[in-house]
Amino acid sequence: MEKKINEQFLYDFYGELLTKKQKRVLDYYYFDDYNPSEIATLMNMTRQGVYDLIKRSRVIMNDFEEKLKLVQRFKNFSHLLEDLNEDIDVVIQENRSEHPEIIKDLMDIKLKIQAINDNF
Amino acid sequence: MEKKINEQFLYDFYGELLTKKQKRVLDYYYFDDYNPSEIATLMNMTRQGVYDLIKRSRVIMNDFEEKLKLVQRFKNFSHLLEDLNEDIDVVIQENRSEHPEIIKDLMDIKLKIQAINDNF
Repeated sequence: MEKKINEQFLYDFYGELLTKKQKRVLDYYYFDDYNPSEIATLMNMTRQGVYDLIKRSRVIMNDFEEKLKLVQRFKNFSHLLEDLNEDIDVVIQENRSEHPEIIKDLMDIKLKIQAINDNF
Repeated sequence: MEKKINEQFLYDFYGELLTKKQKRVLDYYYFDDYNPSEIATLMNMTRQGVYDLIKRSRVIMNDFEEKLKLVQRFKNFSHLLEDLNEDIDVVIQENRSEHPEIIKDLMDIKLKIQAINDNF
């Protein structure tokens, strides 16, 4: 499962670099969760053809990741934003009772951080 | 000048997808600020060859940008972090006199935001 999630990340970032056919197959595979036999029927391909196409697409996407490191950058960046969120949580915890008027502002800032992460 | 800066962004993100020769020429052009005549001498190429190579590299990088939108994403994301920074500035301004003990924590958070932007 972990492996499929990582590949889905690759597909999120590099899917646009694949052919239409590769994208249709990978959409079925990653998003609609069809298995290769089902995809073979849907696409009028052999099961082996589907396996080969998925394998080849992975190689292409991994080659791009090796050069551009988009998935890696996104993960680093996502961790840094999480850290930031936790730092703000600490400030909120420490000041909740004495300075309730600041808490609202900090909560708004937390929402913005979440939005940045979601919209990347 | 603005145009060269934008191209430099493209090169920052997509340079790894170019050939060694294209990278050498673009390094001379964008980072060492040589002009095409000087690069022609350095690379043992014609001036026209240098122009063509730069033009071709731009086309390649723009094609990738059209699909992956890395430069655009980076700029959006950078603006969002700037907004965040300004929001924290406002909280700092509003609370500086009454709650000086919180200011240090918020300053630290601002430094972290700056670091995220710089390390993207």
